[in-house]
Amino acid sequence: MAEWEKLAADKRARLEKTIPAEWKIHSVPESGSYMDVPTTSGLLSETELQITGSSATDLVAKLASGELKSVDVTTAFCKRAAIAHQLVNCALEFFPENALEQARELDAYFEKHKKPIGPLHGLPVSLKDQFRIKGLETSMGYISWLNKYETAESESVMVTLLRKAGAVFYVKTSVPQTLMTCETFNNIIGRTVNPRNKNWSCGGSSGGEGAIVGIRGGIIGVGTDIGGSIRVPSAFNFLYGIRPSHGRMPYAKMANSMEGQETIHSVTGPLAHSAADIRLFLTSVLSQEPWKYDSKVIPLDWRPQEETVIKNKLASGGLTLGFYNCDGIVLPHPPILRGVETVVSTLKANGHHLVEWKPYKHQYAFDLTNGIYTSDGGADVHRDISASGEPVIPNIKDLLNPDIKAIDMLQLFDAQLKKWQYQNEYLDQWREMEKKLGKELDAIIAPITPTAAVRHDRFRYYGYATTINLLDFTSVVVPVTFADKKVDVKDESLVPLNETDKLVQAEYDADAYDGAPVAVQIIGRRLTEERTLAIAEEVGRLLGNAVTP
Amino acid sequence: MAEWEKLAADKRARLEKTIPAEWKIHSVPESGSYMDVPTTSGLLSETELQITGSSATDLVAKLASGELKSVDVTTAFCKRAAIAHQLVNCALEFFPENALEQARELDAYFEKHKKPIGPLHGLPVSLKDQFRIKGLETSMGYISWLNKYETAESESVMVTLLRKAGAVFYVKTSVPQTLMTCETFNNIIGRTVNPRNKNWSCGGSSGGEGAIVGIRGGIIGVGTDIGGSIRVPSAFNFLYGIRPSHGRMPYAKMANSMEGQETIHSVTGPLAHSAADIRLFLTSVLSQEPWKYDSKVIPLDWRPQEETVIKNKLASGGLTLGFYNCDGIVLPHPPILRGVETVVSTLKANGHHLVEWKPYKHQYAFDLTNGIYTSDGGADVHRDISASGEPVIPNIKDLLNPDIKAIDMLQLFDAQLKKWQYQNEYLDQWREMEKKLGKELDAIIAPITPTAAVRHDRFRYYGYATTINLLDFTSVVVPVTFADKKVDVKDESLVPLNETDKLVQAEYDADAYDGAPVAVQIIGRRLTEERTLAIAEEVGRLLGNAVTP
Repeated sequence: MAEWEKLAADKRARLEKTIPAEWKIHSVPESGSYMDVPTTSGLLSETELQITGSSATDLVAKLASGELKSVDVTTAFCKRAAIAHQLVNCALEFFPENALEQARELDAYFEKHKKPIGPLHGLPVSLKDQFRIKGLETSMGYISWLNKYETAESESVMVTLLRKAGAVFYVKTSVPQTLMTCETFNNIIGRTVNPRNKNWSCGGSSGGEGAIVGIRGGIIGVGTDIGGSIRVPSAFNFLYGIRPSHGRMPYAKMANSMEGQETIHSVTGPLAHSAADIRLFLTSVLSQEPWKYDSKVIPLDWRPQEETVIKNKLASGGLTLGFYNCDGIVLPHPPILRGVETVVSTLKANGHHLVEWKPYKHQYAFDLTNGIYTSDGGADVHRDISASGEPVIPNIKDLLNPDIKAIDMLQLFDAQLKKWQYQNEYLDQWREMEKKLGKELDAIIAPITPTAAVRHDRFRYYGYATTINLLDFTSVVVPVTFADKKVDVKDESLVPLNETDKLVQAEYDADAYDGAPVAVQIIGRRLTEERTLAIAEEVGRLLGNAVTP
Repeated sequence: MAEWEKLAADKRARLEKTIPAEWKIHSVPESGSYMDVPTTSGLLSETELQITGSSATDLVAKLASGELKSVDVTTAFCKRAAIAHQLVNCALEFFPENALEQARELDAYFEKHKKPIGPLHGLPVSLKDQFRIKGLETSMGYISWLNKYETAESESVMVTLLRKAGAVFYVKTSVPQTLMTCETFNNIIGRTVNPRNKNWSCGGSSGGEGAIVGIRGGIIGVGTDIGGSIRVPSAFNFLYGIRPSHGRMPYAKMANSMEGQETIHSVTGPLAHSAADIRLFLTSVLSQEPWKYDSKVIPLDWRPQEETVIKNKLASGGLTLGFYNCDGIVLPHPPILRGVETVVSTLKANGHHLVEWKPYKHQYAFDLTNGIYTSDGGADVHRDISASGEPVIPNIKDLLNPDIKAIDMLQLFDAQLKKWQYQNEYLDQWREMEKKLGKELDAIIAPITPTAAVRHDRFRYYGYATTINLLDFTSVVVPVTFADKKVDVKDESLVPLNETDKLVQAEYDADAYDGAPVAVQIIGRRLTEERTLAIAEEVGRLLGNAVTP
């Protein structure tokens, strides 16, 4: 056994011990969905099923009124998370004892002060294993990072502020080695699978969050997104998820590779079962004035007046929305094309104005973005992988292609200038469309991935997600429907647009994808979280997905 | 005559021709202040003196009511700018004919629509020769950039939006070659001097703006600031000036060196005679929704509610302000120390709470900042200087020290990470102070330069300005007083803190500085333009400098 394997085995053994015997499930279904197992396992009481089946918004209201105790809510989610982990292998850290201690303290606080400590008082929140919590490890999928423990000083600002807001931490979820892929596999615990079908990916890199929230082992999960890592797991698990624009949510003291890379910023954001719960998270974090802790956060409270703009349009005249179903590089699979079409026709039927949006130079954006992601030639991730001797996971082999060389600083400046110019040209397109329409273009509807929840090791095209990161636009994923082999028939006559498109098209199999979650993203300009979320909420409501299972 | 000299001579000849014979002054005073020349020259009518002696806020009100015509206001400022240029050599572009044509169009618009076209309707605004205006050259002090003319496509977004807001352009003012110094000298037109004394610098790099607005050849000037370039000319010309935080004002399509450098952003901002005029400028630009044109601009309207917070404190309880008079690296000259003391004692006497602020690691910040400014080893500015064969101006010889080597991209990432950590540590200091005080720390008062308006070629220490750029804090310069040889006596017993301090101390001469403008900066956290400007306004009011000469 190599040293890295011993370290991984040790970590797995430690993780295993964190699940009490009474929370162990006796069998894992061989095939099909795991979604019912928490209910059928018999491990959760009726109350616990009710709690974990609830919304975060309801739970914090009940916790704030004293109707629920944090210990009970925390226990319910710890148990369901334990079940989830046994089914889908989603946790890298599980610490129910710490969580219950925190919950007891919050209950005591409530008892004493007769009021909640903050807007998330007593609510369990799950975190991707990229957030640093004092006293715990932060592996980020690297074996070489194991056995190092965070301190109060090294804790991520988001974690500190969530705790101040009253959140309870109980689990840190799995990520792919390096974070740079939209599936979740590492050499520590292996693969995290989709709770709806173990043959599908839970997405990535916040894949553990997608899986645990998807099966309601979590109610609000917190991820990060530099190229789809919040949105893809949201999409693959039939969840809402937001990629806020850079500067809206704190990122200080997060673990990361390529630290100091500021050309395309990774951002933090939530995954949840409803737009309302997404809003609860964002407003709760903003209530802690994160800009006083993290210089990159813009001092910008949640703006209800921006939501009102959308509400007024809904009340009179409707929304004006662009849409595209193909970025000109890769044509999405039939379920996704149908997903976009479903959203478009539903909106039209409800009186909204839909206009075709012509994706602007997305190939250029894709190439520019990839050049930035690999600007150090992979040196940083190589270092952290090779420090333990663990092998590189297959998903990132393109990223670590030895032909990719580090660029120099002047090339980086050039990329930064091009990025800014591209962003501004995109704004020009947006303004021109508004001029043509004579009114505001409220958002753009687009695929977030070319596939429904993808089969393992087949996530091949990131462009639908990454161009939005390059633009730093706000994007909210809305769950739409599920792939259906009866209607989502493969079009055998398609002529591939290029080699990547050919690969993606070849991968479609109506049977294999039958039932897989289908989503779209709603894209707003930079720092339009209030409006874009309000639009996403309405889209979800019209689709009948206001709250997902 | 070398080719570059011919190009410069040609440019000077063309510039010379733009001033009509009837606007020529017959003599320039040999010594002393030029400030009265516009009045005593006999070239300006009583009305023109009144107009140019007015405030921008008053002028736009009168232009918006039809009481004044843009042609008259524009004529007045063109004449006074022509006088100013003959006195202090401040213009690199002067185009009264275009300006009057624009003014006539605006007057016709008003005649037809009975309303102004925008919040700056008909108001002349001067621009640093770094802003691109269609049809004109943009030299930025480089001879190699002459004879290239901007198009509608290449025009700076700020220019386009100011025009939409109704501003009239008539002059672009001088800058130092490269912009990277706080004095104004280039090989095209030579030196721009201070209107109060030709032996003093007008500051830089927006030095032409400082000079022209200082002598009221302009009413609002627009500059840029990456290391003091708005604030220093404001200070040296007894003006208000704001360095907004990055992302508040548009910068897209500005001319610049080291384009694509995003570690410390240069920002645009106004210089003016009052805080009210600064506010007029900022609100006018924001009214044009610059974030729809420039992706780096945050969609953040002017926030009157933030001003109200300050007004409420003024009405009850007073402000809480930190102050320092020395950053631990260079002790300011006696006039500046007295300036800080004057502000502190005036504020205390008016019931405000003043607390000493301990500058946090400013030497570290200074070194980090310089490393970023020179991150390309001067390659970019070297290229644009050597393209014409012109010599390097003496002021930037430190910047182009051949010992300074370009850093590589990983070193840049490292600098960016250090910058962020430093910014966050500064926020920690701010929070700790607030915790100690039990209330908000509203702003910090500090020197902006170690000297009053500096004697030529003696600007030696940028740290008071540049640390604020590194922090990306908002800073407003407030004019305080004038150096006075009778009270600002040299302290011969001072022991220099270091070699730089020694140089700066040795430079002080009470006689030579007698009468030179003295200013402080009011520093707020990032993106606090509304609050910081409101505080600056109150400080200016208490000092009796609400509107400067």
